[in-house]
Amino acid sequence: MIVVIQCKDRVGLVAAISGILAREQLNIVSLREHVDPTENRFFIRIEVDKETSKEQLREKLSPLLPPDAVISINPQPEKKIVVMVTKEYHCLSDILIRNHFKTLGASVQHVIGNYPVLEDICRRFEIPFSYISHEQIEKDAFEQRILDILLLHQPDYIVLAKFMRILSPAFIQAFPARIINIHHSFLPAFVGANPYRQAFERGVKLIGATAHFVTDQLDEGPIIAQQIIPVNHSYTAADMMRAGKEIETSVLAKALRLVFDDRVLVYKNKTVVFE
Amino acid sequence: MIVVIQCKDRVGLVAAISGILAREQLNIVSLREHVDPTENRFFIRIEVDKETSKEQLREKLSPLLPPDAVISINPQPEKKIVVMVTKEYHCLSDILIRNHFKTLGASVQHVIGNYPVLEDICRRFEIPFSYISHEQIEKDAFEQRILDILLLHQPDYIVLAKFMRILSPAFIQAFPARIINIHHSFLPAFVGANPYRQAFERGVKLIGATAHFVTDQLDEGPIIAQQIIPVNHSYTAADMMRAGKEIETSVLAKALRLVFDDRVLVYKNKTVVFE
Amino acid sequence: MIVVIQCKDRVGLVAAISGILAREQLNIVSLREHVDPTENRFFIRIEVDKETSKEQLREKLSPLLPPDAVISINPQPEKKIVVMVTKEYHCLSDILIRNHFKTLGASVQHVIGNYPVLEDICRRFEIPFSYISHEQIEKDAFEQRILDILLLHQPDYIVLAKFMRILSPAFIQAFPARIINIHHSFLPAFVGANPYRQAFERGVKLIGATAHFVTDQLDEGPIIAQQIIPVNHSYTAADMMRAGKEIETSVLAKALRLVFDDRVLVYKNKTVVFE
Amino acid sequence: MIVVIQCKDRVGLVAAISGILAREQLNIVSLREHVDPTENRFFIRIEVDKETSKEQLREKLSPLLPPDAVISINPQPEKKIVVMVTKEYHCLSDILIRNHFKTLGASVQHVIGNYPVLEDICRRFEIPFSYISHEQIEKDAFEQRILDILLLHQPDYIVLAKFMRILSPAFIQAFPARIINIHHSFLPAFVGANPYRQAFERGVKLIGATAHFVTDQLDEGPIIAQQIIPVNHSYTAADMMRAGKEIETSVLAKALRLVFDDRVLVYKNKTVVFE
Repeated sequence: MIVVIQCKDRVGLVAAISGILAREQLNIVSLREHVDPTENRFFIRIEVDKETSKEQLREKLSPLLPPDAVISINPQPEKKIVVMVTKEYHCLSDILIRNHFKTLGASVQHVIGNYPVLEDICRRFEIPFSYISHEQIEKDAFEQRILDILLLHQPDYIVLAKFMRILSPAFIQAFPARIINIHHSFLPAFVGANPYRQAFERGVKLIGATAHFVTDQLDEGPIIAQQIIPVNHSYTAADMMRAGKEIETSVLAKALRLVFDDRVLVYKNKTVVFE
Repeated sequence: MIVVIQCKDRVGLVAAISGILAREQLNIVSLREHVDPTENRFFIRIEVDKETSKEQLREKLSPLLPPDAVISINPQPEKKIVVMVTKEYHCLSDILIRNHFKTLGASVQHVIGNYPVLEDICRRFEIPFSYISHEQIEKDAFEQRILDILLLHQPDYIVLAKFMRILSPAFIQAFPARIINIHHSFLPAFVGANPYRQAFERGVKLIGATAHFVTDQLDEGPIIAQQIIPVNHSYTAADMMRAGKEIETSVLAKALRLVFDDRVLVYKNKTVVFE
Repeated sequence: MIVVIQCKDRVGLVAAISGILAREQLNIVSLREHVDPTENRFFIRIEVDKETSKEQLREKLSPLLPPDAVISINPQPEKKIVVMVTKEYHCLSDILIRNHFKTLGASVQHVIGNYPVLEDICRRFEIPFSYISHEQIEKDAFEQRILDILLLHQPDYIVLAKFMRILSPAFIQAFPARIINIHHSFLPAFVGANPYRQAFERGVKLIGATAHFVTDQLDEGPIIAQQIIPVNHSYTAADMMRAGKEIETSVLAKALRLVFDDRVLVYKNKTVVFE
Repeated sequence: MIVVIQCKDRVGLVAAISGILAREQLNIVSLREHVDPTENRFFIRIEVDKETSKEQLREKLSPLLPPDAVISINPQPEKKIVVMVTKEYHCLSDILIRNHFKTLGASVQHVIGNYPVLEDICRRFEIPFSYISHEQIEKDAFEQRILDILLLHQPDYIVLAKFMRILSPAFIQAFPARIINIHHSFLPAFVGANPYRQAFERGVKLIGATAHFVTDQLDEGPIIAQQIIPVNHSYTAADMMRAGKEIETSVLAKALRLVFDDRVLVYKNKTVVFE
């Protein structure tokens, strides 16, 4: 069982929490704690060796913690996700394969595409796909159609696996720290469109990819994971894009594993990742 | 202040330890705990925000822990080390530079070389150097001369910075988990002599370096850190050696930083590294 | 068009080859040349900007080169491959996805499994799968059944994507430098069985994967590509295996791309990789 | 001997150049060629196995090449450099050590500091140091004092090893593609001042360093090499700076090795690096 807590920091929090666990005869297999002194904020992730009643444990922990405490007790046996895509297959295919072989750590409920091209690959894995075009429709109506599907599935997380539209602040705020995006650059380098073209023009020797939570500030949300891959003068912008897809796939997979394994805590615009 | 403990595992250890710290009004800034279930062994590293009496804290902690507990309370404000070398300058120079600018996290007391070539670089930094040849002398007598110097300085750690002689089991056992070696390969590949020649013959595409504690099993001690660097067909064995020196320097520096920062716990033939 | 040549080295080879290309009005876009002085061997890879008659070019080049010259002129517009597997899905799935979306640089003709478990994933991509059990059958007969399928497809390369049986020398010698294997360790560390268990026991801090051509020396063939991934004390042997699968997939994909792009030349037990 | 040429591209350049070398009985040990199709520009680096008269070879090559050709024939047996610093020791010390042990590939003629703090470390290696303060002096006069020293030594390259002043366009234009800077970020992320503070605020998971040629566009010159190092939530801005220094040292060392080994060709705002 995994217990994850964040709250205002004060002396004695670890003692209070671990005291409760000890009285429940739960042995701590792994514990990671971090205090952000600038923010005076306490973060903890505890793995214990046995299961116990979530509700009772929460009731015992709550009175000992500051009132702002956010307690997650192994929130869900398996997370449910909805994936949103545009046309590129690489991230989605990787997710579908892991989902199919039960190694994703989450269950893909539905895929939404603003183009129909990826319907076929979903069909091959018997995953429902909804084609919702953003064309000839108001943004509000477009997003409402998406929300209808989300409402149906109540996913824990929404994964933007190369979804190339910008969502409205209202949409994003409805899912705080629950929308995960893969950005095709080493943020904050090359924000915005066409980062590989930008990287090519600049003559960089490494290109990167960034998985982050989405906030209403474009490409500015809390970073979960980043990776890079070396490139050189022989790479065209197209070659950089091809190389970039490899790390986009890889860094999104890593970020999802960390999130689904309850290792990522979000506070303000940063993450604490107990890797 | 940093508290590092390892002992037999049992329920309630974190609660007991953190309870003591809370009663002392010490706030936990960072906590890393790990249980090795195979060995039923508990490892913890705690950073607290204030100093307190080491002796009193130890007296309070001891009765709550299993009798085999090893408790280190920020063992020394600054570690003392003796460095042993043969002829290669790269690791030693890096250590001397960091020592000189007070960023090593330890203080170099003395350098011992079985050749005189590195005396000059030590002299430039006013570090005492002893030339102790292994030639025309029995191994026992050779090691006794080294021990005389170690006895004088009582170093916390002995760093073999490309010391190319094999030490006797008796010597090694006198400093358990206190002798750190840099091995010029990605262990356990290429144990023994001339790993770069071996790597060249094998046509590898990466070469590595390994920092480890020395035990009486050659190249078999607990690994602290490892790194690799890419190579290709255009590398001669000499080029591989040159590239290897870069990561030897880098991985030894990293291992020393981790050890001097009390982040490395040793048990049997493995390390727990709270990086 | 890509021209790849290896032969005994002598003065004037680049001039002879590039002279022919210039007379054909072929502009050299990219040229990589390497001489192995130990072996006195010449390797070259040339990309030119236009197509021309392969046969005529070969006829013009041959008389200018040593008699042992091996000339490949963009051997095939697209390589044909057969993939052999046992039970693990990760490498095969990655190949099937790239094949499906036409980014593999080769065309998967057939998949052969010595267990039936991966038939389903092949069927989803309409790739023929043959289940050929190694049980209750002589090794010769087992391999003959595989050879029958290979004979049918005449593949350029055979990819062992986690095929866990050892092939006979006779089988291997029938396809020199045409069988590509992914080995689940950083060769030459941990040759043989269960490398993740070995890595766990040794307490390594990095684990690796190696793609190599298969020779009749187990795990000893020419290395094409290697990668590593960091691990730590918190990894069980199972965690190391899971992490290892990520780089197995990634390094095999990289090796295949290099081979299919005519960037890998083999000589004796080494490769020249013009990356 | 190393021959490096760049010029307008046209058919037959490799044939023309290698023809001359063959007639001189020079065997090509390694050849790297690249054509930038966007710029229609030809780049080549050739290592031959023997020495010959530079002047005669140049005279034979020139008539066969476009009039804009830049031909470097192993420009100098050993490059001469002047290093400019402010207060940080790490890059300078690394250069001094390599210089001292003759593995830098260049010879440090002089160190110029706009603070006196690094005079001591230069003195230890008998390298002349000039303290030229930027304070209470016009920028022109400050730079003139630097130029006086440069004039004296006629260095091939000027290395800004954490020199924290911005040089005037006039100064920079006097040394085109001959001033090498280490920038403490993964350009183009975090241009300008205090990149580690910016990286900390942004919550990045990797930090980088970039070695580049200096142009009159701040932090915008041709990139030679880049590297990154992972960081996490436990890093303060100061920790990031400390980690960053490690890769600053390492990436500058790599860039210098590439430049001194005649592997870096500059054109417009990019480099071709024949690594």
